[in-house]
Amino acid sequence: MSTIELISANKSFGGWHKRYRHRSTATSCDMTFAIYLPPQADQGEPVPVVYWLSGLTCTDENFMQKAGAQRVAAELGVVIVAPDTSPRGEGVPDDPDGAYDFGMGAGFYINATEEPWARNYRMYDYVVDELPKLIEANFPVSEQRSIFGHSMGGHGALICALKNPGHYQSVSALAPITNPSQVPWGQKALGRYLGSDVEQWKKWDTCELIAGATERLPLLVDQGEGDEFIQQLNPEALEAAAAAVGHPLTLRRQPGYDHSYYFIATFIEDHLRYHAKALGRA
Amino acid sequence: MSTIELISANKSFGGWHKRYRHRSTATSCDMTFAIYLPPQADQGEPVPVVYWLSGLTCTDENFMQKAGAQRVAAELGVVIVAPDTSPRGEGVPDDPDGAYDFGMGAGFYINATEEPWARNYRMYDYVVDELPKLIEANFPVSEQRSIFGHSMGGHGALICALKNPGHYQSVSALAPITNPSQVPWGQKALGRYLGSDVEQWKKWDTCELIAGATERLPLLVDQGEGDEFIQQLNPEALEAAAAAVGHPLTLRRQPGYDHSYYFIATFIEDHLRYHAKALGRA
Repeated sequence: MSTIELISANKSFGGWHKRYRHRSTATSCDMTFAIYLPPQADQGEPVPVVYWLSGLTCTDENFMQKAGAQRVAAELGVVIVAPDTSPRGEGVPDDPDGAYDFGMGAGFYINATEEPWARNYRMYDYVVDELPKLIEANFPVSEQRSIFGHSMGGHGALICALKNPGHYQSVSALAPITNPSQVPWGQKALGRYLGSDVEQWKKWDTCELIAGATERLPLLVDQGEGDEFIQQLNPEALEAAAAAVGHPLTLRRQPGYDHSYYFIATFIEDHLRYHAKALGRA
Repeated sequence: MSTIELISANKSFGGWHKRYRHRSTATSCDMTFAIYLPPQADQGEPVPVVYWLSGLTCTDENFMQKAGAQRVAAELGVVIVAPDTSPRGEGVPDDPDGAYDFGMGAGFYINATEEPWARNYRMYDYVVDELPKLIEANFPVSEQRSIFGHSMGGHGALICALKNPGHYQSVSALAPITNPSQVPWGQKALGRYLGSDVEQWKKWDTCELIAGATERLPLLVDQGEGDEFIQQLNPEALEAAAAAVGHPLTLRRQPGYDHSYYFIATFIEDHLRYHAKALGRA
């Protein structure tokens, strides 16, 4: 297991927001993550963890700065961990045109199989396996975990939960990309990371995974009705896929809300309380 | 009165975060401000306004994105207005070396008298006079006002209140520059904006203004004990100045907190509740 190096620490709502760097085996590069440790993490009893996956262009910082989650986490006594959205740094290949929706900042939480992406772009293994092991080895946390995210990160949270029965106590998403194999963002990313075989794409698509899920973990999803990216997100596809197999889904359409962090901040408390309940903290 | 032009709107906690641009008479350039309109602003009764002044390097955006204030404002029914921290744009002179602590992003909420700054750098007139008139003419708000801010903006809030008895119902500050004429940030800015006559500097210095204040409006101040800029802020000078004349001051030293928005976000609710009470909303 790699060692973790503290980058910065800020006191926040009686706990600590900290950023760490470490060498990642999964992504073969240095990775940065942020962690919010509520005051309860200092009190001797292991605290459960909620993993947050951010959307396109984000790093570990956006959520911690903009979502207003620390106040609620401090009240409930849950740790929040926010990884980066892709591998980064020297030697990590990026989109040749510098596009915002592929390459750095756009790992899509999958394991790439195509060159030159396959060596570093393994965010799925990083998020599901390497990062929790690292967190559980280095912080006073329990092995009780939940996962949530926004947009590309909502997609990430949903596929991580659906592909790993028993691994998470609960899952939720804000404005997730529900059906990446059918929309431009997803088709571009999956086509390049995985190649042209559409059957391979389905292994990373929430709407495809729901059909074969062996655990019917309920899904909580918020979607703004004023979301400027609604065509990429396709909540109707998720609704249909869940209905087809009776997968429990609470899809809340929020009138007037867009895709921004103003939307996320408005509903983050609901999501954290939802996870805290599943984690035995409410 | 100039017209205001909507730049963007995001629904937030049932209300709206909006950004506007307008031509400013005070600063002789286009200015941008942000406003948070809580759900109560749609309900027919005029709503009071709290003005937020940001610190060095900020625009109208930092506070609205990072402080988590909208949740509380939506509960209490107060409007928040966040102006920019200086004039900006083509034709507005800036620090020749691009320093972060002078020129654009560093207006210090004073009226400059020295060239080439005197034409545009009149943030005091803008904040105290022009902006409230603009807000009161264009939004469903009352003439009940309070003011608060952080660092350079904490200094701004305190001097605006101290120099204008009756203009604000309440004032507070987070990590304010309390005694600018005695510390490097203030000496650089006041020396260039106002010239070398130190007597002129005192008209814009909280610790100097307290002695002659004709209204003893109580001051609420939070100061992180881990603040990396503590030497520029000098809470002891404020404490001594207030004690010397019996000006009511609640100075709360917060162990472990630094100068960042993580500190601001932690205590913003206390400040908003303090202002709401003075504004008859709690």
